[in-house]
Amino acid sequence: MKFLIISQKSGLIHKAYWYNQNRLVSVATLGSHCALQVLKGAKDEGLKTILVSEKKREKLYKRFKFIDEIILVDSFSEITSDECQTKLSENNSVLIPHGTLIAQMTSEKIESIKTPIFGNKWILRWESDRELKEKLMLEAKLDVPKAISDPKDIDRLVIAKRQGAAGGKGYFMASSEDDYNKKREKLISQGVIKSDEKLYLQTYHSGVLADVHTNSPLVLRESLLDKVYKMGENFVDASRDLVPPGMNGPFCIEGVYDEEASFYTFEFSARIVAGTNIYMNGSPYSSLIYDEPMSMGRRIAREIKEANSTNQLEKITT
Amino acid sequence: MKFLIISQKSGLIHKAYWYNQNRLVSVATLGSHCALQVLKGAKDEGLKTILVSEKKREKLYKRFKFIDEIILVDSFSEITSDECQTKLSENNSVLIPHGTLIAQMTSEKIESIKTPIFGNKWILRWESDRELKEKLMLEAKLDVPKAISDPKDIDRLVIAKRQGAAGGKGYFMASSEDDYNKKREKLISQGVIKSDEKLYLQTYHSGVLADVHTNSPLVLRESLLDKVYKMGENFVDASRDLVPPGMNGPFCIEGVYDEEASFYTFEFSARIVAGTNIYMNGSPYSSLIYDEPMSMGRRIAREIKEANSTNQLEKITT
Amino acid sequence: MKFLIISQKSGLIHKAYWYNQNRLVSVATLGSHCALQVLKGAKDEGLKTILVSEKKREKLYKRFKFIDEIILVDSFSEITSDECQTKLSENNSVLIPHGTLIAQMTSEKIESIKTPIFGNKWILRWESDRELKEKLMLEAKLDVPKAISDPKDIDRLVIAKRQGAAGGKGYFMASSEDDYNKKREKLISQGVIKSDEKLYLQTYHSGVLADVHTNSPLVLRESLLDKVYKMGENFVDASRDLVPPGMNGPFCIEGVYDEEASFYTFEFSARIVAGTNIYMNGSPYSSLIYDEPMSMGRRIAREIKEANSTNQLEKITT
Repeated sequence: MKFLIISQKSGLIHKAYWYNQNRLVSVATLGSHCALQVLKGAKDEGLKTILVSEKKREKLYKRFKFIDEIILVDSFSEITSDECQTKLSENNSVLIPHGTLIAQMTSEKIESIKTPIFGNKWILRWESDRELKEKLMLEAKLDVPKAISDPKDIDRLVIAKRQGAAGGKGYFMASSEDDYNKKREKLISQGVIKSDEKLYLQTYHSGVLADVHTNSPLVLRESLLDKVYKMGENFVDASRDLVPPGMNGPFCIEGVYDEEASFYTFEFSARIVAGTNIYMNGSPYSSLIYDEPMSMGRRIAREIKEANSTNQLEKITT
Repeated sequence: MKFLIISQKSGLIHKAYWYNQNRLVSVATLGSHCALQVLKGAKDEGLKTILVSEKKREKLYKRFKFIDEIILVDSFSEITSDECQTKLSENNSVLIPHGTLIAQMTSEKIESIKTPIFGNKWILRWESDRELKEKLMLEAKLDVPKAISDPKDIDRLVIAKRQGAAGGKGYFMASSEDDYNKKREKLISQGVIKSDEKLYLQTYHSGVLADVHTNSPLVLRESLLDKVYKMGENFVDASRDLVPPGMNGPFCIEGVYDEEASFYTFEFSARIVAGTNIYMNGSPYSSLIYDEPMSMGRRIAREIKEANSTNQLEKITT
Repeated sequence: MKFLIISQKSGLIHKAYWYNQNRLVSVATLGSHCALQVLKGAKDEGLKTILVSEKKREKLYKRFKFIDEIILVDSFSEITSDECQTKLSENNSVLIPHGTLIAQMTSEKIESIKTPIFGNKWILRWESDRELKEKLMLEAKLDVPKAISDPKDIDRLVIAKRQGAAGGKGYFMASSEDDYNKKREKLISQGVIKSDEKLYLQTYHSGVLADVHTNSPLVLRESLLDKVYKMGENFVDASRDLVPPGMNGPFCIEGVYDEEASFYTFEFSARIVAGTNIYMNGSPYSSLIYDEPMSMGRRIAREIKEANSTNQLEKITT
């Protein structure tokens, strides 16, 4: 189960109109993951849209009229090239980060991007690094399964995870040190993980599993909503303390509900997640807040538009 | 599988405009279950919205701008207090009943509420009482699994259910009298059910199980729709005969389809169900009837608005 | 998993207005399958709607105000009667074919219908005939599981399928010739299949199974979209070569994704499928292309309307 919560701390979201166009901004993103949602949402808000696309996918993205400009690259890492940064700068672009950016670049590389990044680019390192991630989740008072630092200490069922956003590839379960070593060796021999790769071991917690429902619509019991908001607020508070300027963009807390309706948090994503693609036209929850179809991509664009019109873009970008 | 069918017998649903505002009405409900859907729908129809909320959830509900007034209570049972009834009366409120009302109050208490209740409040007793429930389902010619009155007679797989809307908690399967007694004793020792609690035993019928899909969108084969309408009409007819003034509000028939596409009915709810929350913005079926997003909550509000404008509120409330 | 792809080859889809009404057309279909979606979509586009309905379902369809005229028949085969064809002709009807047409009539009968049929009626024979179907899928370079022509050659798990659109009824798995013969005999004795019925044997390919998700919303990883479009284009190309005038209407490619995200195609439908009913109000993908709710039924109606206004109806009918 994944929660989509956009921080309301900036106080910019609920303003209704864009009353100032002194400086036009555009929305840019990498061609993958949730790019279509993000750029369609930006176009719905009247903003110029720019896609940084690998050449092999040019044909796909040219199908969509709402993409105003495509910057072709051989590899996404060219996002930091002078040519690419200049084009984005000329268009006053705000770059929307998503899972592909994190999966394909190191934290150092992401932090070196000169284009303003929507949300907090510094917190993306905390999403990618298992130890930092756990630290932030604990600071946010989330119920996190116990981490095991040494395979010798495996005394119950654990799940071994890789660093970064690998989409679950190479993850495995183990019930003992022996079991862990055997399975790890097998994955190394298959080339799935590297021989010197450090894995993160976490006590396995059964329940309604995140992965089962990721791409499936789900509505919570209304009685659980209050706790969900509390988790979101605690996460925002902890982020402000540990990673200035805090969580000033969308984020997602991922975990399971057990039979007692207690929530255990496994992961977070400190940016838009691909699971929002199923709500391309708004979700049951967005329709409680907006009287028009509002995807997460469109909501991001609206916040950029409103921040720009009130000269507060620096509050929602890094 | 749950069917959402709103009775069309009152003849009020399809009128398009609210042409008379001599007497303003408001929509009220308890803060839980489907309160957000109901009050958002009422606001979409231009009605004042009132929430009776436990103090601990005030913060949650204050987030939603479409809630005009919150009446804070320590417990929902205060709905019958003079103070609460006076406030609701001053606002010409219609109270929308939902699962939380039924789960937390006796039928006597619900029947004593002086605020007009949307639909038929007398039928809520028939929803809560297993024997009355079975009687109404049989009168409606629904295919209901055979009830077993004495555990001695268990000669096949049965499901033991509690009275009222307990959300399935404490339900269990049993294949013999011994099996039944063992499982019952265990639940008593765990404090889940009471030692003198009378359970309702029903032959277990396998198929596409209701619980699996409750919160998941589902579209029926068009060839099955006719039978669904027939079930709904039979239920409306039986309700009019057994529980005047009949089924003048939304209701839900719950059961399973077996492999031959025959439907077996286990339960009904004689009011809006929480499963409608997933269609906060309308369902595939509502879009066949309405050219605007129409949740069940909004549909209720529209019917109240239209009944009020034509002085027929007494036809849709009790 | 099913893909819904409407051919864009005709170049008619993206025009925005209907600027010519010299000749009014109506949309007709058989009363079953996706008739409600198709006729609601046609009404949304301002076209007259006609339903050919079995008498037993008249009551169901009369509930829906968007159905302008109902032609009652004892059996759908009367679609070729003089009376029926005359009525459709007087209304300049375009008949939308769906699964019920294919399930209840031979290819010869369908081909003899004089009313213009939306899409390519000649390709419906290729959908119904297993050998032709396989030929077209291979020509489209789709990855199709290997067919086994003789039960003697069963050396791995196979699935035995019937001809035509039987909805999976009578399909079975077999791991050897003996196993196949036993299961086949049993189904014959139960009257499910005929003793002289020729079954089509296909190597069984496990993965994310089509049937599990047919009626459930699903959004693909954006990185897989390009391949989906390629499959669709190849299918359009192959159809033009093998079955003139080609695939000039909606179609659906059905199969599974394996763990490596490779797609294996089992089936295709050369017309609208019932799975689109869940997107009665548009899908996540349709909202990328249209700024209004756009079901597949409505999209068909729009294409008819635009083709009619530019005198190109013959390009999208046969």
